[in-house]
Amino acid sequence: MSSPGSATGLRVADAGERALIERIRTRVPPGGSSLVVGIGDDAAVAMPDRGALQVLTTDALIEGIHFDRRFSTPADIGHKALAVNVSDVASMGGASRLALLSLMLPAELPVCDVDDLLDGLLDLAQRLRITLVGGNITRSPGPLVLDVTVIGSVRPRRILTRAGRPGDDLYVTGCVGAALAGLEWLREHSEKSVASSAPHAASLPRPTDASMAECVDRYCRPEPRARLGAILGRTRAATACMDLSDGLADGVTQMSSASQTGARIDAALLPIHPAAHTWFGRQGGDAVAAAVTGGDDYELLFAVSPKRRGRLRGVFREARGVPMTRIGALTADRSVGLMRDGRLEPLPTGFVHF
Amino acid sequence: MSSPGSATGLRVADAGERALIERIRTRVPPGGSSLVVGIGDDAAVAMPDRGALQVLTTDALIEGIHFDRRFSTPADIGHKALAVNVSDVASMGGASRLALLSLMLPAELPVCDVDDLLDGLLDLAQRLRITLVGGNITRSPGPLVLDVTVIGSVRPRRILTRAGRPGDDLYVTGCVGAALAGLEWLREHSEKSVASSAPHAASLPRPTDASMAECVDRYCRPEPRARLGAILGRTRAATACMDLSDGLADGVTQMSSASQTGARIDAALLPIHPAAHTWFGRQGGDAVAAAVTGGDDYELLFAVSPKRRGRLRGVFREARGVPMTRIGALTADRSVGLMRDGRLEPLPTGFVHF
Repeated sequence: MSSPGSATGLRVADAGERALIERIRTRVPPGGSSLVVGIGDDAAVAMPDRGALQVLTTDALIEGIHFDRRFSTPADIGHKALAVNVSDVASMGGASRLALLSLMLPAELPVCDVDDLLDGLLDLAQRLRITLVGGNITRSPGPLVLDVTVIGSVRPRRILTRAGRPGDDLYVTGCVGAALAGLEWLREHSEKSVASSAPHAASLPRPTDASMAECVDRYCRPEPRARLGAILGRTRAATACMDLSDGLADGVTQMSSASQTGARIDAALLPIHPAAHTWFGRQGGDAVAAAVTGGDDYELLFAVSPKRRGRLRGVFREARGVPMTRIGALTADRSVGLMRDGRLEPLPTGFVHF
Repeated sequence: MSSPGSATGLRVADAGERALIERIRTRVPPGGSSLVVGIGDDAAVAMPDRGALQVLTTDALIEGIHFDRRFSTPADIGHKALAVNVSDVASMGGASRLALLSLMLPAELPVCDVDDLLDGLLDLAQRLRITLVGGNITRSPGPLVLDVTVIGSVRPRRILTRAGRPGDDLYVTGCVGAALAGLEWLREHSEKSVASSAPHAASLPRPTDASMAECVDRYCRPEPRARLGAILGRTRAATACMDLSDGLADGVTQMSSASQTGARIDAALLPIHPAAHTWFGRQGGDAVAAAVTGGDDYELLFAVSPKRRGRLRGVFREARGVPMTRIGALTADRSVGLMRDGRLEPLPTGFVHF
């Protein structure tokens, strides 16, 4: 153990609230011309985008529920706390602009972990041109909590709600099941690593297999489909869109409900991540069921009217290689089913928090 | 104990996330014409006020740090979670418009407590014409946490930062020390009530003395100075403003720091709540020190240039009886002092979270 006074050994309890805010303030790059008052006053003040609507969302990551410090580095956690909110804004067809961060810190947390949390969040923010404008820090008597609010903007007629129409084709970006496979891999290897008492996620082994490493990365550092969401909104190619935080099956069920339709998904079309497919198969499970119920992929599910397929070709060209796969359709019949080997079965149910 | 299935006995763990969101959605009144997408989609969408800047703030209330369920009813906690954010927006000269609520709920929490939390928050929201546009619910493995984000608006030249000028007079609204006295009263009486095993804050005794009851109310349900903050901004009577979340001494120190000035406070001018004065005196303490370091009053501290005293008279007329008391001034000398009985002493230090 290093002494509480040393740079690496300093804990949150030793630093004090003002010193922590100062540490954060020095890490945050200056905002653009639209930021009138930034971090340090009672509230932030910013100029909204001209002629645009505000998109508002908030999502919390709680230790023990959404992350485990044995699996994720502080920078991973900071990244993910912003990413899940950006994903929500993107799924409305919006562009994320501003972020607020509420940090609830256990007294024993090393201050260098707070720095790393911020770095993970700010790296993503800088890449997506999002300004961290404020927030608050408080002590937590329990778990580490990061609650992020993102404010974005969208042009009035380009909003993508969850409500599509019967007959719309359903598409999903990227692939599904990767984050769950990554999490399961981490769980299995952390059980092994307890014996060797790995002190910190940073020293946890990562898969040597590149394809499984992708799955672990997807779980630890999901990449929100920020650009694609904005393109889908701008081109008005999609009639509805949402992001997959709680799994594809949950997404399809929710979109059907919002659309007052049913849905039919074709198992043979599902873009299941290859390493996830192999992993779930090896565990003796149903790879399709695992892939559609696994959360945390943060891909976009969207509906496209058959009449607008032409617009979708334009989206494919602009998407810079982001895969988009047709997986089924919204149906007038209100049931939500999975076609597999010529038989229709109910879509497995998704993740629930309680 | 009632059964988990009964209306009063239902716990959060029994209800499920979607059912809880539905319960909240049915409680929230419909938004005005500026709300394009409300609760239930990936994010909310709203039209910003024309020609106005956005004011953004977030603040969390954590069980065991900011509130105690033995002292505060669920409705008190819901009220306060919104009030502390509205107070921040008001202290920038802004008007609160939209709110987002992040709820982190222990599995054992009764669902009727969640309803009451919402009612407390929504009563204040309705009174101040704030629309709850979204949020998220998740399970908490530890304390109950409410994290609220408020988005307000302010006209470009009417922003009140914390930065005043040397020579500005300092004013405070209402009175100070009340919330701390109220909290101390509750602590003393909850220790007594443990013996009688009061099951719930709603059944805790409240002071029979009307003046002390005011103090307890101030602690449990602070009334943000929403209207007065907006008036101070609109009339441009104040050069600087902030709210007193962590006590007057902390506020004066922070405003001095932001102003690159010092400050001189006159103990004889301090509007200490009479019941608080009596309470602190009876405990054998220094009533002035207790009143200036006690947090949670959520009054406004503001600076007024002597040249603008005329404008302040207009504010007094508009303020509908909200008391405003001159307590000292910002000084070119960088020290922050308290004049008491003809002697200058350092201002006692305020509340720190860590």
